[in-house]
Amino acid sequence: MRPYMHVCNTPALIDHFDVSKAIVVVIDILRATTSMCVAFGNGAKLMVPVEHIEEARAFREKGYLIAGERSGVQVEGFDMGNSPYSFMEDHIKDAKIAITTTNGTRALKAAQQRNAREIVIGAFPNITILGDWLIEQNQNVCLLCSGWRENETMEDTIFAGAMAQKIRMHFKPYQDTTLMARTLYKNANTRKRYFLRNSSHFNRLVHLNLQNDVKYSMRRDTHNVIPLLIGDELYDIAGKEDYKAFKKEILGKQLT
Amino acid sequence: MRPYMHVCNTPALIDHFDVSKAIVVVIDILRATTSMCVAFGNGAKLMVPVEHIEEARAFREKGYLIAGERSGVQVEGFDMGNSPYSFMEDHIKDAKIAITTTNGTRALKAAQQRNAREIVIGAFPNITILGDWLIEQNQNVCLLCSGWRENETMEDTIFAGAMAQKIRMHFKPYQDTTLMARTLYKNANTRKRYFLRNSSHFNRLVHLNLQNDVKYSMRRDTHNVIPLLIGDELYDIAGKEDYKAFKKEILGKQLT
Repeated sequence: MRPYMHVCNTPALIDHFDVSKAIVVVIDILRATTSMCVAFGNGAKLMVPVEHIEEARAFREKGYLIAGERSGVQVEGFDMGNSPYSFMEDHIKDAKIAITTTNGTRALKAAQQRNAREIVIGAFPNITILGDWLIEQNQNVCLLCSGWRENETMEDTIFAGAMAQKIRMHFKPYQDTTLMARTLYKNANTRKRYFLRNSSHFNRLVHLNLQNDVKYSMRRDTHNVIPLLIGDELYDIAGKEDYKAFKKEILGKQLT
Repeated sequence: MRPYMHVCNTPALIDHFDVSKAIVVVIDILRATTSMCVAFGNGAKLMVPVEHIEEARAFREKGYLIAGERSGVQVEGFDMGNSPYSFMEDHIKDAKIAITTTNGTRALKAAQQRNAREIVIGAFPNITILGDWLIEQNQNVCLLCSGWRENETMEDTIFAGAMAQKIRMHFKPYQDTTLMARTLYKNANTRKRYFLRNSSHFNRLVHLNLQNDVKYSMRRDTHNVIPLLIGDELYDIAGKEDYKAFKKEILGKQLT
């Protein structure tokens, strides 16, 4: 029997699907989950997503790099902003990074509080490797869009549609939202410029001169990573033959 | 300055828009708002939407016809089911009708509790007359999909998209949801059969042999009505030159 797949367009609707029996893919295309993939692609050791600036700052003393922006400007005293381009430099390799994100972190916590079976990070940079991994797990999947302040956003739903389109043959269809997301993705794929120009978040970023970040966020398969949440930390499990053993090992270390 | 228009895909997301400054269009295509339009088109005097069977039954003693189904079967002792075809007969003329609906009533109450400026009923049978009326009012509009148990459904979002497409030039765009709904509508319009076949609610109804209801619910402009909520009752205000005076008159009567 094939497992279920469900598209959840905002964390506010998460209770329509039992995530305790599902792998949750957290999606925040502009720019949190995109940047996380880039960071792991450039060798980051682990990442901790937090909601507030002060939480991130507290990690500095523990030897973490700290990343965050507010209103498009890097927070004073932080090592990096939120742009994917911030996570391509040499000092990323082997770094522990705390990153403040609002919508992405909220989605992640929503899934965590409901005891999601697993929580992974999805974006265009890792769409294929993640899709293949999801098929391989043969578990229910919830594609969880972070949205913007708990409302739906175009780019997250479009990514959910792209992922649903890719893996759908291995899952039972579940809700109308899956078909809706796939339809939006197929339209966006042929009329990318039109969709971007009309997306509210894109317009916010363009206003801040972050067009390059947006363009980067649409590029596929640039980084073969599968960031998985273990405790409150993200680790890349791509290429690990037995990710559950790795998870257990990390959980053990976190306890000590 | 043009007013705002917003598509809200389920009552669970209603707080993303200040409905106290907006006309809310309640949408429940399969089948509550469709049937309400048909009832008023056939001369119903007023309708009271209620959530539970017992509430509807209580109206019988006050001289109301009562309408309702559960699992596709007319409730025992009720005068009518929920099918639009139930509201086409002679006894509808001048009748007061209490109708039980789950999702539609919840959406209506959600808007009412937030002091919506006005609440009107929308569906394909009244799309054009209602759209023209909305443009004329020159107020913010919230297109509120009832969904299915607070989750999003294809057919309600498609109607919101159809309405948004029709009236958009007179409003400011607001959220990504508006563009998403319009895109879905345009796709559904060219591939109606594909969308219906894949819609979960359609499949529930087809299973109950209600294909004719579904087909009927897609027909446009069959009834020139504008059902408006006054107190807890719906009245048709189409053709009333001064609907506010009419509303005031009804509210006065309800108080006495």
